[in-house]
Amino acid sequence: MHHETLTYQADGLTMKSQLFFEPAATPRAGVLVFPEAFGLGEHAISRAERLAALGYAALACDLHGDGRVVDDLQEAIGLLQPLFADPSKTRARAAGGLAALTARAEVDASRVASIGYCFGGTMSLELARAGAELKAVVGFHSGLGTAAPKTDAKNIKARVLVCIGADDPMIDAAQRAGFEAEMRDAGVDWQMHLYGGTVHSFTNPEAAKRNMPDAIRYSAEADARSWAAMQELFGETLS
Amino acid sequence: MHHETLTYQADGLTMKSQLFFEPAATPRAGVLVFPEAFGLGEHAISRAERLAALGYAALACDLHGDGRVVDDLQEAIGLLQPLFADPSKTRARAAGGLAALTARAEVDASRVASIGYCFGGTMSLELARAGAELKAVVGFHSGLGTAAPKTDAKNIKARVLVCIGADDPMIDAAQRAGFEAEMRDAGVDWQMHLYGGTVHSFTNPEAAKRNMPDAIRYSAEADARSWAAMQELFGETLS
Repeated sequence: MHHETLTYQADGLTMKSQLFFEPAATPRAGVLVFPEAFGLGEHAISRAERLAALGYAALACDLHGDGRVVDDLQEAIGLLQPLFADPSKTRARAAGGLAALTARAEVDASRVASIGYCFGGTMSLELARAGAELKAVVGFHSGLGTAAPKTDAKNIKARVLVCIGADDPMIDAAQRAGFEAEMRDAGVDWQMHLYGGTVHSFTNPEAAKRNMPDAIRYSAEADARSWAAMQELFGETLS
Repeated sequence: MHHETLTYQADGLTMKSQLFFEPAATPRAGVLVFPEAFGLGEHAISRAERLAALGYAALACDLHGDGRVVDDLQEAIGLLQPLFADPSKTRARAAGGLAALTARAEVDASRVASIGYCFGGTMSLELARAGAELKAVVGFHSGLGTAAPKTDAKNIKARVLVCIGADDPMIDAAQRAGFEAEMRDAGVDWQMHLYGGTVHSFTNPEAAKRNMPDAIRYSAEADARSWAAMQELFGETLS
């Protein structure tokens, strides 16, 4: 498998993202992978490697710049405050990854999806709300709120899938209902998969490190189910 | 493919159900298929045939007795009134199918699932709520209400998946929320997949015959997505 670091500027930061793909004779579909709030660590990188093994060119994207990873949740949230306050910053960081990926000759720029975990899922949704040329967006335990739900969803060109723990305290029923209304009003092709008995970070085997099992917990079942649902959507949209 | 009519008594009716399986050296996992409210017609039978082609022994189950199929929606609803009033009748009809299927030497009775469409999905859920030995239940545009949500869900042994059109006027947000609470309180392994822009009967290519497109409409995308989700759950539970 080919692996290299892609360096690019986005939102005033120097991003260091990790590109993976298998050798092939023709350009492949591309997938952006945005990490949890902590920054680009092993979790998102391992998912990009799995996507590359499936035949995609996958870019695991830097979030905080310079490949910075923080371990403390409060520190991570602090770093994201400017992005919460101004979604154009979130979109700019995501768009930098999209431009870097689609600039590659190995990638078919007409077949690109974006996925993400936790805040990375939000980034993928924000990239779609900005009107990016994406065929599919998948958010895993991704925050669903946005600054302008009445207007921006009309820009979405991608088919959207969000995979959510039904007991996730960070993505409650009200937030889900707001997202549903946003997608419906804009006529988006959207799906929401709800997993019972499941909370935040269900895709991340390292979730136990947080020591908050009622809120943040790995689930092998929900991880497998959501990964399969993503592949089904990619089969629809990236083939 | 082997095909035969299985005749059995249930809820005081003579049921004529359709069994399908491919030849195999050892017993197969079994799947019950319950039809829409109109009775056992081409739609549920075709799904049983597809399941048999996938390697399952599939029983497309009679609903009204004597293989009766009605074409008029109001007539179908009228026939179901006694079942709405007394869920034990619904459960008895479903249990008859389960007993008939698992009595067959070709079926591994320890690996059985139940699926259904519209009222047939409700039948599958009611069979699970009655404590039946099922590994998985899948309801497609299935009514989610039940007579005793506070108690019966505790009997569920199956993993449950319901696939619902987000704009289905017959399964509204309040009904979905009630089901979510029922499953959560009982600690069931459950999932709900919501499909945007999708209404009732999304799996049935004949839905247009009803001439109620705002309420009852086929969706090739939601049909394919829900079928794939069912297969994923069967991979988990029936292998």
